[in-house]
Amino acid sequence: MTHDGDSDSDGDGDGAAAPRVLAEGRFLRFIDERGWEYVVRPNASGVVVIVAMTADDRLLLVEQYRTAVHARVVELPAGLVGDAGPSAGESLEAAAHRELIEETGFAADEMVRLAEGPVAVGVAAEVVTFFHARGLRRVGPGGGDDTEAITVHEVPRADLRRWLAEKERAGAMVDPKLFAGLYLVMDGGG
Amino acid sequence: MTHDGDSDSDGDGDGAAAPRVLAEGRFLRFIDERGWEYVVRPNASGVVVIVAMTADDRLLLVEQYRTAVHARVVELPAGLVGDAGPSAGESLEAAAHRELIEETGFAADEMVRLAEGPVAVGVAAEVVTFFHARGLRRVGPGGGDDTEAITVHEVPRADLRRWLAEKERAGAMVDPKLFAGLYLVMDGGG
Repeated sequence: MTHDGDSDSDGDGDGAAAPRVLAEGRFLRFIDERGWEYVVRPNASGVVVIVAMTADDRLLLVEQYRTAVHARVVELPAGLVGDAGPSAGESLEAAAHRELIEETGFAADEMVRLAEGPVAVGVAAEVVTFFHARGLRRVGPGGGDDTEAITVHEVPRADLRRWLAEKERAGAMVDPKLFAGLYLVMDGGG
Repeated sequence: MTHDGDSDSDGDGDGAAAPRVLAEGRFLRFIDERGWEYVVRPNASGVVVIVAMTADDRLLLVEQYRTAVHARVVELPAGLVGDAGPSAGESLEAAAHRELIEETGFAADEMVRLAEGPVAVGVAAEVVTFFHARGLRRVGPGGGDDTEAITVHEVPRADLRRWLAEKERAGAMVDPKLFAGLYLVMDGGG
């Protein structure tokens, strides 16, 4: 846990000291709030993560190099809400539709909200919202926007664990949100 | 996505510029690496997350106020590896045993590794390792160390979604790693 003796010791968050900005990056703001350090993204209003399965039960996954871990990472399609000029102010659901098309080339008839929560609460304010994309149809090539280099995979669900293990042997990492998304869909949440 | 036009545009990570430290906190280091910003924890070698179910199928969960999101968060028991003086250099497995006891008061006969991966790769280098705690027995009160104020819950697995929904209605948030851990255990990974 990131903590120190100056923290609000009863943990109820009633401390009076204001958050202090330690550094302002171009995308992230680094904050110290009563001894707890974390980053926020001032220019995004949320993050959406999409569980998308084709009619023949293939899970759509994306793979891209991620600088923070110096490795390729296999993930569910995902993206920021309201980060680009034209998409500023969009809803979470609209962002999920947009990101699924941009990254995978598949459009969905419907986006069903599954769950929402913080994913790395010891270091970041980041809260992600999971959606289940229903009724997929291919409408484009996918692969992300101009600044992204994304490989799209369609992985038969029955073969998933073996496929992921092979990716890891080849040096890729796997984002555990993938497993959270599958649980949420399996568990009747969407 | 956190990115800009200066990034290694083919995404293969072969750019030559070294990471630049934008700010050094007490717990986190804020880095800019070829236009990608993220934080690392210099004083921890890993993060462990523990899926622990009692013999009568109750899932052990912890709840604590989390400054980064200004809310109480329901999570799997978890902790840093090698962050405290006495535990410096410990293994992931040893850290999982230690954190489970500290946070929940339950000891496990065995810790089985389930999976490992980055949880917020757009903002942090944080990689977590999931363990399945087998053979639980109560050995203490739990509740964390001196600086933590943790409430422990034993939630019947059949009742979990209803219980979590009630927590959310009361203002708490739920860390999706909880769902990832359950998927990994259910899916025969441990």
